[in-house]
Amino acid sequence: MDEHKETNGERALKETIRRIRPMDDEAARLARSHSDSLTKPPGSLGKLEDAAAKLAGITGELWPDLSKRAVIVMAGDHGVCEEGVSAFPQAVTPQMVHNFLNGGAAVNVLARQAGAEVVCVDIGVASELSHERLISRKAVWGTRNMAKEPAMTREEAVSAVLTGIEVAQEQLQRGVRVFATGEMGIGNTTASAAIVSVLAGLPVRETAGRGTGIDDKALSHKINVVERAIALNKPDPEDPIDVLAKVGGAEIAGLAGVILGAASNRCPVVIDGYISSAAALIAMRLCEHAREYMLASHLSQERGHALLLQKLGLSPLLQLDMRLGEGTGAVLAFHLLDASIRLMQEMATFDSAGVSKS
Amino acid sequence: MDEHKETNGERALKETIRRIRPMDDEAARLARSHSDSLTKPPGSLGKLEDAAAKLAGITGELWPDLSKRAVIVMAGDHGVCEEGVSAFPQAVTPQMVHNFLNGGAAVNVLARQAGAEVVCVDIGVASELSHERLISRKAVWGTRNMAKEPAMTREEAVSAVLTGIEVAQEQLQRGVRVFATGEMGIGNTTASAAIVSVLAGLPVRETAGRGTGIDDKALSHKINVVERAIALNKPDPEDPIDVLAKVGGAEIAGLAGVILGAASNRCPVVIDGYISSAAALIAMRLCEHAREYMLASHLSQERGHALLLQKLGLSPLLQLDMRLGEGTGAVLAFHLLDASIRLMQEMATFDSAGVSKS
Repeated sequence: MDEHKETNGERALKETIRRIRPMDDEAARLARSHSDSLTKPPGSLGKLEDAAAKLAGITGELWPDLSKRAVIVMAGDHGVCEEGVSAFPQAVTPQMVHNFLNGGAAVNVLARQAGAEVVCVDIGVASELSHERLISRKAVWGTRNMAKEPAMTREEAVSAVLTGIEVAQEQLQRGVRVFATGEMGIGNTTASAAIVSVLAGLPVRETAGRGTGIDDKALSHKINVVERAIALNKPDPEDPIDVLAKVGGAEIAGLAGVILGAASNRCPVVIDGYISSAAALIAMRLCEHAREYMLASHLSQERGHALLLQKLGLSPLLQLDMRLGEGTGAVLAFHLLDASIRLMQEMATFDSAGVSKS
Repeated sequence: MDEHKETNGERALKETIRRIRPMDDEAARLARSHSDSLTKPPGSLGKLEDAAAKLAGITGELWPDLSKRAVIVMAGDHGVCEEGVSAFPQAVTPQMVHNFLNGGAAVNVLARQAGAEVVCVDIGVASELSHERLISRKAVWGTRNMAKEPAMTREEAVSAVLTGIEVAQEQLQRGVRVFATGEMGIGNTTASAAIVSVLAGLPVRETAGRGTGIDDKALSHKINVVERAIALNKPDPEDPIDVLAKVGGAEIAGLAGVILGAASNRCPVVIDGYISSAAALIAMRLCEHAREYMLASHLSQERGHALLLQKLGLSPLLQLDMRLGEGTGAVLAFHLLDASIRLMQEMATFDSAGVSKS
């Protein structure tokens, strides 16, 4: 990063990153030990016990109160859509933002069920949007077409990450104690494929999938477009901001910011599907410890997601063959996190219940 | 079954089986069609859409009200424990029944979270149990040691199945509209392994697992015990009641009854882990259509469960590396069924939200 002059924005980003500490291993160990005293064979609650230990390590509390929760849905458009990489027209991005604001999208339904607020942020939609519940913070009016030029300038990418950090901090001040990541942006599996290929060193045929539902022919075109974008822009795999700027997207940058903002406040963040995981990879490359604050919600059907979760070192709680994004998988996972905490808090111990240990 | 005189019990069982009808394919088709009109790419909600269609097919309603729900926890003891097949002593069965009744077990915590009632049935515990909330219907006082003799008589097995049907019917009369299966019985993964090996034609090394946590040596002993029990008793794979009687257990028989009782009333039943799935296999062999009323909740860590679910033709909603039983996985799955129904009921359509279809 020494080639370019450090801007105020990059200094602010570094400041947030500096505040991200390793998680509290002692609290996680205490949680494991409490879990082993409960009336069940040790480890028999599987990933729920892992989640309980991780949440304790993140928050420093044995059974943190995560009842106040929000899914941050970042929306942005992608210039690369003009290459014909999606099954849906770009107009769907603002249409779906209105759907989120009116409570009719899948993520709204699932958020109501899980007691989570949907916080919708216009961080880069290519059209004018206005609504009393919309957080309007455009870092770009849609990205540029990465198959022809860099999607964003470095300054725009940094600004989008900072916006994510700010949104997280505003929600933390309102009392939110756990985040889910969500997004909307026609074309954003294309940008995510490019990010993951560059940062994880994977061929595009392993990172580009069918998105909202393209056929074989459109998929090989999409792979070709991503390969061209990478060849043209030559993003530096050692510089996550360079990757975000050249082949990323504003909503992906914003979610990376939400993750960093959560991590710097010892707040757990539940990662949704492929696009959110691409944002998580950016966040992890900006700060290795950020990973410790992430919980993977689900394994998406989008090609490359399993490999991406491996790179993140995260094991998903759900595998429901979903491929919708919006934060739907992350919000569903709240029920499992609630379960993991309630079990810790409410189960009887072998001693208290008079049950023989072996 | 023509070798033996048909008893009143077997006649009553046949009567229930006769009432189980195929599910309503037209209702399932309508649900799929409604699902495709909602603001998301078709099929992008994966298994949640499958579950919604299945619930519609089972109940005949597009979004059935499943708010009144119960997990039926059947408890029974196993004579085969005297062979040393479990990591826990047999005394744990009644101890855990008390834990269920006092609300301190994992299934109680998860049932409270999911708004389900825990209905605890003593269908075959080897000791005296009494509690105001316990349903006491012993079909046996523990089974006999199947490594030395048949675990139950045919009459005892039929009586346990009928008890399960009765319990389901009592709960249906109280307004319950969806069941989860649960069980407690030290030694019951051993009986389940025997059932699955006989009915699915699988070698015991593929159906016997570590249960509550036995080591390699104990596992090979367990496999040997199951092989001996099958060789000695020669259960007839064409006669599920014969299998239940000779190498099964009262709680497994009871759960098969709960499943048949639910199916005969067009009520969905959520199958928990390995032991519940063994009961489901019995139910399916007694009546092929019973399978259509089952939803698989989770893939257990117990060896053989994946193969068993394949034989049942069911795809699990959750894979959390759990191996506790009690109905814990089934109760967790209620959140996902709720999600599938709410999405059907509350999501906007492309038309109502003004979102472009492509």
